[in-house]
Amino acid sequence: MLGIEETAYYIPEKRVSNFNRKEKFGIGDEFIRNKIGVEEIAVKSDLENTSDMCIAAYKKLKEKIEINNQDIDVVIVVTQNPDYSIPQTSAILHGVLGFKDECASFDISLGCSGFVYGLSVITSFMKANKFKKGLLFTADPYSKIVDPADKNTSLLFGDAATVTLITENPVFIAQDFVFGTNGACYKDLICENNTLYMNGRGIANFAIKIVPKDILALLERNNLEKEDIDKYLIHQGSKFIVDSLSKKIGLDESKVMYDISLYGNTVSSSIPILIEKIIKDESVDLALGSGFGVGLSWANVLLKRVR
Amino acid sequence: MLGIEETAYYIPEKRVSNFNRKEKFGIGDEFIRNKIGVEEIAVKSDLENTSDMCIAAYKKLKEKIEINNQDIDVVIVVTQNPDYSIPQTSAILHGVLGFKDECASFDISLGCSGFVYGLSVITSFMKANKFKKGLLFTADPYSKIVDPADKNTSLLFGDAATVTLITENPVFIAQDFVFGTNGACYKDLICENNTLYMNGRGIANFAIKIVPKDILALLERNNLEKEDIDKYLIHQGSKFIVDSLSKKIGLDESKVMYDISLYGNTVSSSIPILIEKIIKDESVDLALGSGFGVGLSWANVLLKRVR
Repeated sequence: MLGIEETAYYIPEKRVSNFNRKEKFGIGDEFIRNKIGVEEIAVKSDLENTSDMCIAAYKKLKEKIEINNQDIDVVIVVTQNPDYSIPQTSAILHGVLGFKDECASFDISLGCSGFVYGLSVITSFMKANKFKKGLLFTADPYSKIVDPADKNTSLLFGDAATVTLITENPVFIAQDFVFGTNGACYKDLICENNTLYMNGRGIANFAIKIVPKDILALLERNNLEKEDIDKYLIHQGSKFIVDSLSKKIGLDESKVMYDISLYGNTVSSSIPILIEKIIKDESVDLALGSGFGVGLSWANVLLKRVR
Repeated sequence: MLGIEETAYYIPEKRVSNFNRKEKFGIGDEFIRNKIGVEEIAVKSDLENTSDMCIAAYKKLKEKIEINNQDIDVVIVVTQNPDYSIPQTSAILHGVLGFKDECASFDISLGCSGFVYGLSVITSFMKANKFKKGLLFTADPYSKIVDPADKNTSLLFGDAATVTLITENPVFIAQDFVFGTNGACYKDLICENNTLYMNGRGIANFAIKIVPKDILALLERNNLEKEDIDKYLIHQGSKFIVDSLSKKIGLDESKVMYDISLYGNTVSSSIPILIEKIIKDESVDLALGSGFGVGLSWANVLLKRVR
């Protein structure tokens, strides 16, 4: 069965502190620490492009596990901030990393739900085409499109890339997925004239309304109680959103991961970064990942450790 | 088994004649008719966006077959010219067409190989998630990015959108696929500063070198001779490329479709437009689709009529 064998991430070194922007945005420590829950954001260098960040993540993956580049059968990049609109960033990675001619490659355009979608797409595509080794990248450097003067976005989003190795020797398999879309509200998170606009309240209301019932439905149809899940990997949109969702669903706080205070909301990279932190933790048998945002779109996945 | 039940396309009415541009580009009738094989290109109106073209194609689909919008489980749009970089165009379609909340949606970023890839992605994703009805759109209006003064691109590319209905009641099933990437040459077809650049010779050389052997390999592993295929749906890049590939492979000319002289190279829409033309033709049992271009990327599919 195909699943996640290993994962790695790259977060650029450079940080911009939100404490240094308190006066500019008229905010206090309480807002920074407990509302948005982001003390500083990670920002890529101007010389770094999306593909460079993916390559940096792949380098870290190769430090953890031996991979022969010639064995890779498919490369998928989840991004809405590619190097170019044409070609797809996966092709650029293919060229730079010298993958074989027979390697399939394409990009998926999705935001914060992108990793969960990508996990279903890559595993089903690999299974159908009898592929053995695949790479799922996420990299959505919002620093390319965030207006530094926009309080709603510039305090929140950080840059990162991740790569997940999919093989027939998995540590986690995806046992079940649930997907959804509310396209009518797509303007709540949109990039126009190369600038991101976010209706933060709209997104939060949508997530709090939609996500809990879908998580509970996913549990129910797999005959699970919420206590059966060892870790909840809720998209790290902000501390407010993670706390609100946990409370609404009634989750044990110790099971809900929160990790982004020192790098920010990394869009489709937030869930795979959390997976990296639990993949070696044998106490985690079952994890539930929940991505939501751009689209508006959401996707939940039940991850089960293979014993 | 999941496959293609019906398909429809939309080509904007407006045409720009290449005969009226002979002087401007220093070209003659022979070049127009037999080299590029495009007499006029279809151009969308300035008021029309990518999602509008998809909706026009969907309207045509609904004229052919009854579809309840609430039955659609997944919408995928293949494009590299979306309405916005954020959100994905599939979400906009979801909103406008009023699909259900449980409908999954995402975009795939690929060029001329996009429909064949998309067909594998949507069928495998649907199978894995037990979905019954899906829509695969293609829409890549290059008029958004073509420089009217660029002879290499402005005589060639036309605007179109297609939609393919995937169900468990198929007319054609995809029996086998083969994919490939040559990322090292990605600069041969690239959009920089919102303008398309194409190294036509580079793309042609790549296609003539790579595509024939992959088509023959696909036939061989399915125990087929090239004569067993009733129609070849080669990406309609230009007359030169379709003729060159047919000759190189040694195909019977009458089996090779060529259709674009009155609307142009429509990127990922070119193969599904050809499928629309043969779906009701019972004499076509086996068809072979071959897409290649942006990436550089290619994908071949063997389509079999369900009897």
